[in-house]
Amino acid sequence: MTEAQQARQEARAGRLGVTRGVALGFVQCNLVILQQHAAYDFLLYCQRNQKACPVLEVTDVGDPEPKRTAPGADLRTDVPKYAVYREGQRVEDETDITRLWEPGFVAFLIGSGITFDGALEQAGVPTNQHRWVLRTTIPTEPAGPFHGNLVVTMRWLTPAQALIATQVSARFPFNHGAPIHIGDPNQIGADLAQPLFGEPIGVIPSKYVPVFWACGVTPQAAAEAAKIDLMITHAPAHGFISDLRSDRICLP
Amino acid sequence: MTEAQQARQEARAGRLGVTRGVALGFVQCNLVILQQHAAYDFLLYCQRNQKACPVLEVTDVGDPEPKRTAPGADLRTDVPKYAVYREGQRVEDETDITRLWEPGFVAFLIGSGITFDGALEQAGVPTNQHRWVLRTTIPTEPAGPFHGNLVVTMRWLTPAQALIATQVSARFPFNHGAPIHIGDPNQIGADLAQPLFGEPIGVIPSKYVPVFWACGVTPQAAAEAAKIDLMITHAPAHGFISDLRSDRICLP
Repeated sequence: MTEAQQARQEARAGRLGVTRGVALGFVQCNLVILQQHAAYDFLLYCQRNQKACPVLEVTDVGDPEPKRTAPGADLRTDVPKYAVYREGQRVEDETDITRLWEPGFVAFLIGSGITFDGALEQAGVPTNQHRWVLRTTIPTEPAGPFHGNLVVTMRWLTPAQALIATQVSARFPFNHGAPIHIGDPNQIGADLAQPLFGEPIGVIPSKYVPVFWACGVTPQAAAEAAKIDLMITHAPAHGFISDLRSDRICLP
Repeated sequence: MTEAQQARQEARAGRLGVTRGVALGFVQCNLVILQQHAAYDFLLYCQRNQKACPVLEVTDVGDPEPKRTAPGADLRTDVPKYAVYREGQRVEDETDITRLWEPGFVAFLIGSGITFDGALEQAGVPTNQHRWVLRTTIPTEPAGPFHGNLVVTMRWLTPAQALIATQVSARFPFNHGAPIHIGDPNQIGADLAQPLFGEPIGVIPSKYVPVFWACGVTPQAAAEAAKIDLMITHAPAHGFISDLRSDRICLP
Protein backbone atom coordinates (compact mmCIF):
# COMPACT_ATOMS: atom_id res chain seq x y z
CA MET A 1 0.00 0.00 0.00
CA THR A 2 1.39 3.43 -0.89
CA GLU A 3 1.59 6.28 1.60
CA ALA A 4 -1.24 7.97 -0.29
CA GLN A 5 -3.52 4.94 -0.01
CA GLN A 6 -2.62 4.62 3.66
CA ALA A 7 -3.43 8.28 4.30
CA ARG A 8 -6.82 7.93 2.58
CA GLN A 9 -7.57 4.82 4.63
CA GLU A 10 -6.77 6.78 7.80
CA ALA A 11 -9.02 9.60 6.61
CA ARG A 12 -11.82 7.15 5.89
CA ALA A 13 -11.48 5.76 9.42
CA GLY A 14 -11.66 9.28 10.84
CA ARG A 15 -8.08 9.16 12.10
CA LEU A 16 -6.41 11.75 9.82
CA GLY A 17 -6.25 15.48 10.51
CA VAL A 18 -4.29 18.17 8.72
CA THR A 19 -2.69 16.80 5.55
CA ARG A 20 0.23 19.19 5.25
CA GLY A 21 3.38 17.07 5.30
CA VAL A 22 1.42 13.83 4.82
CA ALA A 23 2.44 11.52 1.93
CA LEU A 24 4.98 13.97 0.52
CA GLY A 25 5.61 13.29 -3.15
CA PHE A 26 1.93 12.63 -3.86
CA VAL A 27 -0.26 15.32 -5.37
CA GLN A 28 -2.60 16.89 -2.83
CA CYS A 29 -5.84 18.31 -4.13
CA ASN A 30 -8.36 20.92 -3.17
CA LEU A 31 -11.89 19.56 -3.47
CA VAL A 32 -14.98 21.35 -4.73
CA ILE A 33 -18.27 19.46 -5.07
CA LEU A 34 -21.14 21.16 -6.87
CA GLN A 35 -24.47 20.27 -8.35
CA GLN A 36 -24.52 19.47 -12.05
CA HIS A 37 -26.18 22.72 -13.11
CA ALA A 38 -23.19 24.72 -11.83
CA ALA A 39 -20.51 22.43 -13.25
CA TYR A 40 -20.02 24.02 -16.68
CA ASP A 41 -19.58 27.54 -15.39
CA PHE A 42 -17.25 26.31 -12.67
CA LEU A 43 -15.13 24.32 -15.12
CA LEU A 44 -15.01 27.37 -17.37
CA TYR A 45 -14.01 29.55 -14.41
CA CYS A 46 -11.13 27.17 -13.73
CA GLN A 47 -10.11 27.21 -17.40
CA ARG A 48 -10.11 31.00 -17.44
CA ASN A 49 -8.00 31.18 -14.29
CA GLN A 50 -5.89 28.13 -14.72
CA LYS A 51 -2.83 29.31 -12.85
CA ALA A 52 -4.94 29.44 -9.69
CA CYS A 53 -7.28 26.59 -10.60
CA PRO A 54 -5.40 23.69 -12.18
CA VAL A 55 -8.12 21.06 -12.61
CA LEU A 56 -6.69 17.59 -12.14
CA GLU A 57 -9.93 15.64 -12.34
CA VAL A 58 -13.64 16.13 -12.82
CA THR A 59 -15.69 13.12 -11.79
CA ASP A 60 -18.56 11.80 -13.84
CA VAL A 61 -21.94 13.07 -12.65
CA GLY A 62 -22.97 11.27 -9.45
CA ASP A 63 -19.81 9.18 -9.22
CA PRO A 64 -17.82 9.73 -5.99
CA GLU A 65 -14.81 7.80 -7.30
CA PRO A 66 -11.95 9.87 -8.75
CA LYS A 67 -11.10 7.20 -11.32
CA ARG A 68 -8.23 9.06 -12.92
CA THR A 69 -6.27 10.38 -9.96
CA ALA A 70 -7.08 7.81 -7.26
CA PRO A 71 -8.94 4.73 -8.52
CA GLY A 72 -10.85 3.01 -5.72
CA ALA A 73 -10.96 6.12 -3.53
CA ASP A 74 -14.27 7.57 -2.35
CA LEU A 75 -14.61 11.33 -2.23
CA ARG A 76 -17.46 11.04 0.31
CA THR A 77 -15.17 9.61 2.99
CA ASP A 78 -11.50 9.93 2.06
CA VAL A 79 -10.98 13.59 2.87
CA PRO A 80 -10.21 14.12 6.58
CA LYS A 81 -12.60 17.05 6.96
CA TYR A 82 -15.22 18.66 4.74
CA ALA A 83 -16.78 22.12 4.82
CA VAL A 84 -20.42 22.39 3.73
CA TYR A 85 -21.58 25.69 2.24
CA ARG A 86 -25.17 26.74 1.66
CA GLU A 87 -25.83 29.97 -0.24
CA GLY A 88 -22.13 30.79 0.13
CA GLN A 89 -22.11 30.37 3.93
CA ARG A 90 -20.04 27.68 5.64
CA VAL A 91 -22.74 26.02 7.69
CA GLU A 92 -21.12 22.85 8.98
CA ASP A 93 -18.02 20.69 8.94
CA GLU A 94 -18.22 16.94 8.40
CA THR A 95 -15.78 14.04 8.38
CA ASP A 96 -18.06 11.97 6.12
CA ILE A 97 -20.50 13.33 3.53
CA THR A 98 -22.11 10.06 2.48
CA ARG A 99 -25.51 11.16 3.80
CA LEU A 100 -25.24 14.48 1.89
CA TRP A 101 -24.24 12.95 -1.45
CA GLU A 102 -26.65 13.52 -4.33
CA PRO A 103 -26.87 11.75 -7.70
CA GLY A 104 -26.31 15.08 -9.46
CA PHE A 105 -23.01 15.90 -7.73
CA VAL A 106 -19.84 16.60 -9.67
CA ALA A 107 -16.50 16.71 -7.85
CA PHE A 108 -13.56 18.82 -8.94
CA LEU A 109 -10.05 18.04 -7.76
CA ILE A 110 -7.80 21.05 -8.07
CA GLY A 111 -4.03 21.10 -7.62
CA SER A 112 -2.76 22.40 -4.30
CA GLY A 113 0.47 24.25 -3.69
CA ILE A 114 1.30 21.67 -1.04
CA THR A 115 2.16 19.44 -4.00
CA PHE A 116 5.56 20.96 -4.55
CA ASP A 117 6.50 21.04 -0.85
CA GLY A 118 8.42 17.80 -1.34
CA ALA A 119 10.41 19.29 -4.22
CA LEU A 120 11.04 22.48 -2.25
CA GLU A 121 12.26 20.55 0.79
CA GLN A 122 14.60 18.51 -1.42
CA ALA A 123 15.98 21.77 -2.77
CA GLY A 124 16.60 23.03 0.76
CA VAL A 125 13.59 25.35 1.04
CA PRO A 126 11.70 24.84 4.32
CA THR A 127 7.92 24.51 3.94
CA ASN A 128 6.66 23.94 7.46
CA GLN A 129 6.58 27.59 8.60
CA HIS A 130 5.86 31.14 7.49
CA ARG A 131 3.08 30.29 5.08
CA TRP A 132 -0.32 31.93 4.80
CA VAL A 133 -3.30 32.03 2.48
CA LEU A 134 -4.34 35.60 1.68
CA ARG A 135 -6.93 37.47 -0.30
CA THR A 136 -5.66 40.00 -2.87
CA THR A 137 -7.26 42.73 -4.97
CA ILE A 138 -6.30 41.09 -8.28
CA PRO A 139 -9.56 40.25 -10.08
CA THR A 140 -10.02 36.86 -11.64
CA GLU A 141 -11.75 36.32 -14.98
CA PRO A 142 -15.41 35.54 -14.19
CA ALA A 143 -17.51 32.74 -15.70
CA GLY A 144 -21.25 32.63 -15.12
CA PRO A 145 -21.87 33.36 -11.42
CA PHE A 146 -18.27 32.61 -10.41
CA HIS A 147 -16.14 35.66 -9.74
CA GLY A 148 -13.87 37.25 -7.18
CA ASN A 149 -10.30 38.13 -6.46
CA LEU A 150 -7.25 35.94 -6.63
CA VAL A 151 -6.29 34.12 -3.44
CA VAL A 152 -2.57 33.59 -2.95
CA THR A 153 -0.21 31.58 -0.84
CA MET A 154 2.46 33.77 0.73
CA ARG A 155 5.70 32.24 1.95
CA TRP A 156 8.47 34.14 3.69
CA LEU A 157 11.80 33.00 2.30
CA THR A 158 15.37 34.23 2.31
CA PRO A 159 16.37 35.82 -1.01
CA ALA A 160 18.39 32.71 -1.92
CA GLN A 161 15.44 30.43 -1.06
CA ALA A 162 13.10 32.69 -3.02
CA LEU A 163 15.17 32.25 -6.17
CA ILE A 164 15.38 28.49 -5.71
CA ALA A 165 11.66 28.21 -4.94
CA THR A 166 10.85 30.17 -8.12
CA GLN A 167 12.83 27.77 -10.25
CA VAL A 168 11.50 24.66 -8.51
CA SER A 169 7.84 25.71 -8.68
CA ALA A 170 8.19 26.73 -12.35
CA ARG A 171 8.64 23.04 -13.08
CA PHE A 172 5.02 22.50 -11.96
CA PRO A 173 3.17 24.55 -14.61
CA PHE A 174 0.02 22.47 -14.09
CA ASN A 175 0.07 23.12 -10.37
CA HIS A 176 0.26 26.91 -9.96
CA GLY A 177 3.78 27.05 -11.40
CA ALA A 178 6.11 29.96 -10.64
CA PRO A 179 5.18 32.76 -8.20
CA ILE A 180 2.94 35.57 -9.41
CA HIS A 181 4.63 38.20 -7.24
CA ILE A 182 7.63 38.83 -5.01
CA GLY A 183 8.20 41.64 -2.52
CA ASP A 184 5.72 44.34 -1.48
CA PRO A 185 2.36 42.75 -0.52
CA ASN A 186 0.56 46.04 -1.20
CA GLN A 187 1.27 45.85 -4.91
CA ILE A 188 -1.20 42.99 -5.17
CA GLY A 189 -3.41 44.14 -2.32
CA ALA A 190 -2.56 41.09 -0.21
CA ASP A 191 -4.60 41.28 2.98
CA LEU A 192 -2.12 40.54 5.78
CA ALA A 193 -4.57 41.72 8.43
CA GLN A 194 -7.00 38.92 7.65
CA PRO A 195 -5.39 35.74 6.42
CA LEU A 196 -7.92 33.07 5.47
CA PHE A 197 -6.70 30.91 8.33
CA GLY A 198 -4.78 31.93 11.43
CA GLU A 199 -3.82 35.16 13.12
CA PRO A 200 -3.15 38.59 11.53
CA ILE A 201 0.39 38.79 10.17
CA GLY A 202 2.89 41.21 11.69
CA VAL A 203 5.88 42.95 10.19
CA ILE A 204 7.95 40.85 7.83
CA PRO A 205 11.43 40.33 9.32
CA SER A 206 14.05 42.01 7.14
CA LYS A 207 15.91 38.80 6.41
CA TYR A 208 12.90 37.47 4.49
CA VAL A 209 11.26 38.39 1.22
CA PRO A 210 7.59 37.46 0.78
CA VAL A 211 6.85 35.31 -2.28
CA PHE A 212 3.32 34.84 -3.60
CA TRP A 213 1.82 31.96 -5.55
CA ALA A 214 -1.67 31.68 -7.05
CA CYS A 215 -3.62 29.47 -4.66
CA GLY A 216 -6.06 26.63 -5.29
CA VAL A 217 -8.44 28.15 -2.74
CA THR A 218 -9.29 30.81 -5.37
CA PRO A 219 -12.09 28.73 -6.96
CA GLN A 220 -13.57 27.99 -3.52
CA ALA A 221 -13.66 31.71 -2.82
CA ALA A 222 -15.34 32.24 -6.20
CA ALA A 223 -17.95 29.60 -5.39
CA GLU A 224 -18.58 31.26 -2.03
CA ALA A 225 -18.94 34.63 -3.73
CA ALA A 226 -21.39 33.09 -6.21
CA LYS A 227 -23.59 32.09 -3.25
CA ILE A 228 -24.15 28.69 -4.83
CA ASP A 229 -27.04 26.80 -3.14
CA LEU A 230 -24.89 23.91 -2.09
CA MET A 231 -21.17 23.34 -2.25
CA ILE A 232 -18.95 20.96 -0.34
CA THR A 233 -15.20 21.44 -0.15
CA HIS A 234 -12.33 20.03 1.87
CA ALA A 235 -11.82 21.95 5.08
CA PRO A 236 -8.73 24.18 4.95
CA ALA A 237 -5.48 22.19 5.24
CA HIS A 238 -7.43 18.92 5.09
CA GLY A 239 -6.84 18.05 1.44
CA PHE A 240 -7.46 14.99 -0.70
CA ILE A 241 -4.32 12.94 -1.28
CA SER A 242 -4.32 11.47 -4.78
CA ASP A 243 -2.26 8.65 -6.27
CA LEU A 244 -0.60 11.03 -8.73
CA ARG A 245 3.08 11.44 -8.09
CA SER A 246 4.22 15.05 -7.97
CA ASP A 247 6.99 14.02 -10.34
CA ARG A 248 4.40 13.13 -12.92
CA ILE A 249 3.05 16.66 -13.16
CA CYS A 250 6.41 18.38 -13.13
CA LEU A 251 8.69 19.09 -16.04
CA PRO A 252 12.09 17.39 -16.21
CA MET B 1 -1.52 47.15 -36.42
CA THR B 2 0.17 43.88 -35.43
CA GLU B 3 0.87 41.09 -37.89
CA ALA B 4 -1.85 39.09 -36.17
CA GLN B 5 -4.45 41.83 -36.63
CA GLN B 6 -3.36 42.26 -40.23
CA ALA B 7 -3.71 38.55 -40.92
CA ARG B 8 -7.22 38.50 -39.42
CA GLN B 9 -8.19 41.50 -41.53
CA GLU B 10 -6.98 39.67 -44.62
CA ALA B 11 -8.94 36.61 -43.55
CA ARG B 12 -12.05 38.72 -43.04
CA ALA B 13 -11.64 40.14 -46.54
CA GLY B 14 -11.33 36.64 -47.95
CA ARG B 15 -7.72 37.16 -48.99
CA LEU B 16 -5.92 34.79 -46.61
CA GLY B 17 -5.30 31.11 -47.28
CA VAL B 18 -3.16 28.65 -45.36
CA THR B 19 -1.96 30.18 -42.07
CA ARG B 20 1.19 28.12 -41.59
CA GLY B 21 4.09 30.59 -41.44
CA VAL B 22 1.76 33.59 -41.09
CA ALA B 23 2.33 35.99 -38.16
CA LEU B 24 5.04 33.84 -36.59
CA GLY B 25 5.34 34.56 -32.88
CA PHE B 26 1.58 34.80 -32.41
CA VAL B 27 -0.38 31.87 -31.04
CA GLN B 28 -2.37 30.06 -33.71
CA CYS B 29 -5.50 28.27 -32.63
CA ASN B 30 -7.63 25.40 -33.74
CA LEU B 31 -11.31 26.34 -33.68
CA VAL B 32 -14.25 24.19 -32.60
CA ILE B 33 -17.74 25.69 -32.49
CA LEU B 34 -20.52 23.67 -30.86
CA GLN B 35 -24.02 24.18 -29.59
CA GLN B 36 -24.38 24.96 -25.90
CA HIS B 37 -25.73 21.54 -24.93
CA ALA B 38 -22.48 19.90 -26.02
CA ALA B 39 -20.16 22.47 -24.44
CA TYR B 40 -19.71 20.94 -20.97
CA ASP B 41 -18.78 17.48 -22.23
CA PHE B 42 -16.44 18.99 -24.80
CA LEU B 43 -14.71 21.20 -22.22
CA LEU B 44 -14.40 18.17 -19.96
CA TYR B 45 -12.96 16.13 -22.86
CA CYS B 46 -10.34 18.82 -23.34
CA GLN B 47 -9.55 18.88 -19.61
CA ARG B 48 -9.13 15.12 -19.56
CA ASN B 49 -6.83 15.19 -22.57
CA GLN B 50 -5.10 18.46 -22.04
CA LYS B 51 -1.82 17.62 -23.68
CA ALA B 52 -3.69 17.27 -26.98
CA CYS B 53 -6.38 19.84 -26.23
CA PRO B 54 -4.95 22.94 -24.55
CA VAL B 55 -7.99 25.23 -24.30
CA LEU B 56 -6.92 28.85 -24.68
CA GLU B 57 -10.38 30.41 -24.71
CA VAL B 58 -14.03 29.50 -24.47
CA THR B 59 -16.33 32.27 -25.62
CA ASP B 60 -19.46 33.24 -23.77
CA VAL B 61 -22.59 31.61 -25.18
CA GLY B 62 -23.60 33.30 -28.43
CA ASP B 63 -20.70 35.74 -28.47
CA PRO B 64 -18.47 35.43 -31.55
CA GLU B 65 -15.77 37.68 -30.07
CA PRO B 66 -12.80 35.94 -28.43
CA LYS B 67 -12.43 38.66 -25.81
CA ARG B 68 -9.48 37.14 -24.02
CA THR B 69 -7.20 36.06 -26.84
CA ALA B 70 -8.12 38.54 -29.61
CA PRO B 71 -10.39 41.39 -28.47
CA GLY B 72 -12.30 42.87 -31.39
CA ALA B 73 -11.92 39.80 -33.58
CA ASP B 74 -14.96 37.99 -34.97
CA LEU B 75 -14.87 34.21 -35.10
CA ARG B 76 -17.55 34.21 -37.81
CA THR B 77 -15.29 35.88 -40.36
CA ASP B 78 -11.68 35.97 -39.18
CA VAL B 79 -10.69 32.40 -39.95
CA PRO B 80 -9.62 31.98 -43.59
CA LYS B 81 -11.65 28.81 -44.12
CA TYR B 82 -14.20 26.89 -42.06
CA ALA B 83 -15.35 23.28 -42.23
CA VAL B 84 -19.00 22.60 -41.38
CA TYR B 85 -19.86 19.18 -39.96
CA ARG B 86 -23.32 17.73 -39.61
CA GLU B 87 -23.72 14.44 -37.71
CA GLY B 88 -19.94 14.06 -37.85
CA GLN B 89 -19.75 14.47 -41.65
CA ARG B 90 -17.90 17.37 -43.25
CA VAL B 91 -20.63 18.72 -45.48
CA GLU B 92 -19.30 22.07 -46.67
CA ASP B 93 -16.48 24.56 -46.47
CA GLU B 94 -17.13 28.28 -45.93
CA THR B 95 -15.04 31.43 -45.75
CA ASP B 96 -17.68 33.20 -43.65
CA ILE B 97 -20.11 31.57 -41.21
CA THR B 98 -22.16 34.65 -40.29
CA ARG B 99 -25.29 33.17 -41.83
CA LEU B 100 -24.79 29.90 -39.90
CA TRP B 101 -24.17 31.51 -36.50
CA GLU B 102 -26.68 30.65 -33.77
CA PRO B 103 -27.32 32.38 -30.42
CA GLY B 104 -26.48 29.14 -28.61
CA PHE B 105 -23.02 28.70 -30.13
CA VAL B 106 -19.91 28.35 -27.99
CA ALA B 107 -16.48 28.62 -29.60
CA PHE B 108 -13.39 26.86 -28.31
CA LEU B 109 -9.93 28.03 -29.28
CA ILE B 110 -7.38 25.29 -28.81
CA GLY B 111 -3.60 25.66 -29.03
CA SER B 112 -1.99 24.55 -32.24
CA GLY B 113 1.47 23.06 -32.64
CA ILE B 114 2.16 25.75 -35.25
CA THR B 115 2.56 28.05 -32.22
CA PHE B 116 6.08 26.93 -31.46
CA ASP B 117 7.26 26.98 -35.08
CA GLY B 118 8.77 30.40 -34.47
CA ALA B 119 10.73 29.16 -31.46
CA LEU B 120 11.84 26.06 -33.39
CA GLU B 121 13.02 28.13 -36.36
CA GLN B 122 14.95 30.40 -34.00
CA ALA B 123 16.63 27.32 -32.56
CA GLY B 124 17.60 26.16 -36.06
CA VAL B 125 14.90 23.51 -36.51
CA PRO B 126 13.17 23.81 -39.91
CA THR B 127 9.38 23.70 -39.76
CA ASN B 128 8.31 24.13 -43.37
CA GLN B 129 8.69 20.52 -44.49
CA HIS B 130 8.30 16.89 -43.45
CA ARG B 131 5.31 17.42 -41.21
CA TRP B 132 2.11 15.40 -41.13
CA VAL B 133 -1.00 14.94 -39.02
CA LEU B 134 -1.66 11.27 -38.28
CA ARG B 135 -4.15 9.12 -36.44
CA THR B 136 -2.77 6.73 -33.82
CA THR B 137 -4.16 3.82 -31.81
CA ILE B 138 -3.62 5.55 -28.45
CA PRO B 139 -7.06 6.00 -26.86
CA THR B 140 -8.01 9.31 -25.33
CA GLU B 141 -9.99 9.64 -22.11
CA PRO B 142 -13.66 10.01 -23.14
CA ALA B 143 -16.15 12.54 -21.78
CA GLY B 144 -19.86 12.24 -22.59
CA PRO B 145 -20.13 11.47 -26.33
CA PHE B 146 -16.59 12.61 -27.12
CA HIS B 147 -14.09 9.83 -27.64
CA GLY B 148 -11.51 8.51 -30.04
CA ASN B 149 -7.80 8.05 -30.52
CA LEU B 150 -5.05 10.58 -30.17
CA VAL B 151 -4.09 12.50 -33.30
CA VAL B 152 -0.43 13.45 -33.55
CA THR B 153 1.81 15.74 -35.52
CA MET B 154 4.81 13.86 -36.89
CA ARG B 155 7.92 15.77 -37.90
CA TRP B 156 11.00 14.20 -39.48
CA LEU B 157 14.08 15.69 -37.88
CA THR B 158 17.76 14.87 -37.65
CA PRO B 159 18.73 13.41 -34.27
CA ALA B 160 20.32 16.72 -33.24
CA GLN B 161 17.19 18.65 -34.30
CA ALA B 162 14.99 16.13 -32.47
CA LEU B 163 16.80 16.79 -29.20
CA ILE B 164 16.61 20.56 -29.66
CA ALA B 165 12.94 20.41 -30.66
CA THR B 166 12.16 18.36 -27.54
CA GLN B 167 13.71 20.96 -25.29
CA VAL B 168 12.14 23.92 -27.12
CA SER B 169 8.63 22.45 -27.18
CA ALA B 170 8.86 21.45 -23.49
CA ARG B 171 8.84 25.17 -22.75
CA PHE B 172 5.25 25.30 -24.10
CA PRO B 173 3.49 23.05 -21.58
CA PHE B 174 0.16 24.75 -22.29
CA ASN B 175 0.52 24.14 -26.01
CA HIS B 176 1.16 20.37 -26.37
CA GLY B 177 4.57 20.63 -24.72
CA ALA B 178 7.26 18.00 -25.32
CA PRO B 179 6.81 15.14 -27.80
CA ILE B 180 4.83 12.09 -26.74
CA HIS B 181 6.95 9.66 -28.80
CA ILE B 182 10.13 9.41 -30.83
CA GLY B 183 11.17 6.68 -33.26
CA ASP B 184 9.10 3.73 -34.46
CA PRO B 185 5.65 4.93 -35.63
CA ASN B 186 4.20 1.45 -35.06
CA GLN B 187 4.64 1.69 -31.32
CA ILE B 188 1.85 4.25 -31.21
CA GLY B 189 -0.04 2.88 -34.21
CA ALA B 190 0.60 6.01 -36.26
CA ASP B 191 -1.19 5.60 -39.58
CA LEU B 192 1.37 6.63 -42.22
CA ALA B 193 -0.75 5.19 -45.02
CA GLN B 194 -3.54 7.70 -44.41
CA PRO B 195 -2.38 11.03 -43.08
CA LEU B 196 -5.26 13.39 -42.31
CA PHE B 197 -4.11 15.71 -45.08
CA GLY B 198 -1.89 14.92 -48.05
CA GLU B 199 -0.46 11.81 -49.66
CA PRO B 200 0.50 8.49 -48.03
CA ILE B 201 3.94 8.69 -46.45
CA GLY B 202 6.79 6.58 -47.80
CA VAL B 203 9.86 5.18 -46.12
CA ILE B 204 11.51 7.49 -43.62
CA PRO B 205 15.00 8.42 -44.89
CA SER B 206 17.65 7.03 -42.54
CA LYS B 207 19.08 10.42 -41.71
CA TYR B 208 15.82 11.40 -39.98
CA VAL B 209 14.08 10.28 -36.82
CA PRO B 210 10.32 10.79 -36.61
CA VAL B 211 9.15 12.82 -33.61
CA PHE B 212 5.50 12.89 -32.52
CA TRP B 213 3.55 15.58 -30.66
CA ALA B 214 -0.04 15.45 -29.40
CA CYS B 215 -2.05 17.43 -31.92
CA GLY B 216 -4.84 19.96 -31.47
CA VAL B 217 -6.86 18.19 -34.15
CA THR B 218 -7.58 15.45 -31.58
CA PRO B 219 -10.69 17.17 -30.17
CA GLN B 220 -12.02 17.77 -33.69
CA ALA B 221 -11.64 14.06 -34.38
CA ALA B 222 -13.47 13.33 -31.11
CA ALA B 223 -16.30 15.65 -32.09
CA GLU B 224 -16.53 13.95 -35.49
CA ALA B 225 -16.60 10.56 -33.80
CA ALA B 226 -19.36 11.81 -31.48
CA LYS B 227 -21.47 12.56 -34.59
CA ILE B 228 -22.51 15.86 -33.05
CA ASP B 229 -25.49 17.41 -34.93
CA LEU B 230 -23.62 20.55 -35.85
CA MET B 231 -20.00 21.53 -35.46
CA ILE B 232 -17.96 24.16 -37.23
CA THR B 233 -14.18 24.10 -37.19
CA HIS B 234 -11.36 25.85 -39.00
CA ALA B 235 -10.44 24.02 -42.19
CA PRO B 236 -7.12 22.16 -41.85
CA ALA B 237 -4.09 24.51 -41.95
CA HIS B 238 -6.43 27.53 -41.92
CA GLY B 239 -6.15 28.45 -38.24
CA PHE B 240 -7.27 31.40 -36.17
CA ILE B 241 -4.43 33.80 -35.39
CA SER B 242 -4.81 35.25 -31.89
CA ASP B 243 -3.18 38.28 -30.28
CA LEU B 244 -1.42 36.08 -27.71
CA ARG B 245 2.32 36.09 -28.11
CA SER B 246 3.86 32.63 -28.15
CA ASP B 247 6.36 33.96 -25.62
CA ARG B 248 3.53 34.55 -23.21
CA ILE B 249 2.56 30.89 -23.03
CA CYS B 250 6.09 29.56 -22.85
CA LEU B 251 8.23 29.09 -19.79
CA PRO B 252 11.41 31.16 -19.40
